Amino acid sequence: MIHSTRSQDPVLIVGSMAFDDLELPSVDAKDVIGGSATYASLSASLFSEARVVAVVGDDFPKQAVETLASRGVDVEGIERARGKTFRWVGRYAKNLASRTTLDTQLNVFADFRPKLPAAYRASPYLLLGNIHPALQLEVLTQVERPKLVAADTMNFWISGERPTLLELLKKIDTLVINDEELRQLADEHNVKRAAARVRSLGPRRLVVKRGEYGAMLFDDHGIFFAPAYPLEDEVDPTGAGDTFAGALMGYLSREGTLDESSMRKALMVAATVASFCVEGVGTERLVSLDRAQVARRLEDLRTLVHFGH
Amino acid sequence: MIHSTRSQDPVLIVGSMAFDDLELPSVDAKDVIGGSATYASLSASLFSEARVVAVVGDDFPKQAVETLASRGVDVEGIERARGKTFRWVGRYAKNLASRTTLDTQLNVFADFRPKLPAAYRASPYLLLGNIHPALQLEVLTQVERPKLVAADTMNFWISGERPTLLELLKKIDTLVINDEELRQLADEHNVKRAAARVRSLGPRRLVVKRGEYGAMLFDDHGIFFAPAYPLEDEVDPTGAGDTFAGALMGYLSREGTLDESSMRKALMVAATVASFCVEGVGTERLVSLDRAQVARRLEDLRTLVHFGH
Repeated sequence: MIHSTRSQDPVLIVGSMAFDDLELPSVDAKDVIGGSATYASLSASLFSEARVVAVVGDDFPKQAVETLASRGVDVEGIERARGKTFRWVGRYAKNLASRTTLDTQLNVFADFRPKLPAAYRASPYLLLGNIHPALQLEVLTQVERPKLVAADTMNFWISGERPTLLELLKKIDTLVINDEELRQLADEHNVKRAAARVRSLGPRRLVVKRGEYGAMLFDDHGIFFAPAYPLEDEVDPTGAGDTFAGALMGYLSREGTLDESSMRKALMVAATVASFCVEGVGTERLVSLDRAQVARRLEDLRTLVHFGH
Repeated sequence: MIHSTRSQDPVLIVGSMAFDDLELPSVDAKDVIGGSATYASLSASLFSEARVVAVVGDDFPKQAVETLASRGVDVEGIERARGKTFRWVGRYAKNLASRTTLDTQLNVFADFRPKLPAAYRASPYLLLGNIHPALQLEVLTQVERPKLVAADTMNFWISGERPTLLELLKKIDTLVINDEELRQLADEHNVKRAAARVRSLGPRRLVVKRGEYGAMLFDDHGIFFAPAYPLEDEVDPTGAGDTFAGALMGYLSREGTLDESSMRKALMVAATVASFCVEGVGTERLVSLDRAQVARRLEDLRTLVHFGH
């Protein structure tokens, strides 16, 4: 299923790069390299060329950027600004099912205005990671007719920046959000009705992430359901959603088509890659992941929903 | 998939018959005919011969028993006792995702001792609906080597009657519970680890119901995932879990084998039938349901998890 010889178009990822301080059930971890762009580019680069536009402070380790580069990520668009890197401090519940934000320090991210290197403007696949929707819109003005524009967002923007977010929704093909955010955005608990409402706001495709319950795709072809890979040892869910979105885009770029079959396979692949993310603290599992490991687990995931016909 | 010409063994269902007073978001409904045996026998009888052992009071409408009989349910084992029928009063949250028990009146159910008519003792498929585990054990002493024994239970017995429940678990093949109950029974949040723990207590098969997120089967062959049918108009989830269990047993009886393929199909069929249950108040949708309608929706459910190979 995961071919290694396809031509591929670059995936441009705009998002955050961060230090995360994590209080996990199994361990406390400080200065963990994180951020939506970090997770998404690592997973997209498993399948395709990934380019990142993000900002870090002068305290961000060169080594971390080199790790991305060593995984094939084009890091030319990572801006190094004077000041401290964005920091998120969070505490997870014992069962990892919920988390509390203890502190958010925007630091250099407060003044971030994404500027695309000239070579990035023609990127055919664009993933607008979870940042202020006004910045997501700014990025859209700088790109030239991408094949696919996907965006993520979060509760904070849905409640606080709804008009700007609605503006963005008109201009993207695919929205990737979790089910709580879907319900909040649509003001509707029923997932099917909520999906119809959000699709009527612009995006023709909606991907709903449901954590341990899998993910759903709503598009003109109907509904597709991808299960989550059942993990025995969950360590850290941070970045799993970003990893999912990155893998989705990377796989679609590798496939080279956006037909229904590719979209559905892309959800299965994305669910698979995201499951690896949860097995380590931060990106530690992702940075050693290879396509062969993904292919093996994808087979397990396929078996999970297989029944005789 | 749903064959109409197979031979079939009877499914014996032991459980409750009840009046339910329901406070639903869309309507308040009193004296709704309910109970685990009612829902399970209606759904099992779609596929196979179903027999019920339960107790009702002298206030229970004859009409309701006749409705079961008209759907092909063998009602000989329904005992009519002096007194009032078991009553459950519940209120659902606006989004139907949670419910509160406002009142439980055991009435004639308080003295219920299930007695199997002689003709029922050789029933090859036995579903022990959610009643006191001591009564479930009593039923087991009265049956002759069934092919398959499945049981349901609930949080109330898991916390209050654990030793008796553990005794029961040693004697059944298949446990059918929801995910919260699984976590409570195993004292473990992770579903995969919880499933392994519960299976080590006796049942070789575990079916975990997850409401709108579908259902999972854990057995010697691994894990199978059946999605829930995405409903646009959810009316009343009461009895959906019992409907699921009844359909599972009815379908397995019709198939006549318990191999992996039949088990997986049975979960898909059970998820389909349960989705109909939620579309009406009480059993109103189930009593008019036929196999052709189930077969059509099953095709939709199959499409939901289909992707190219």
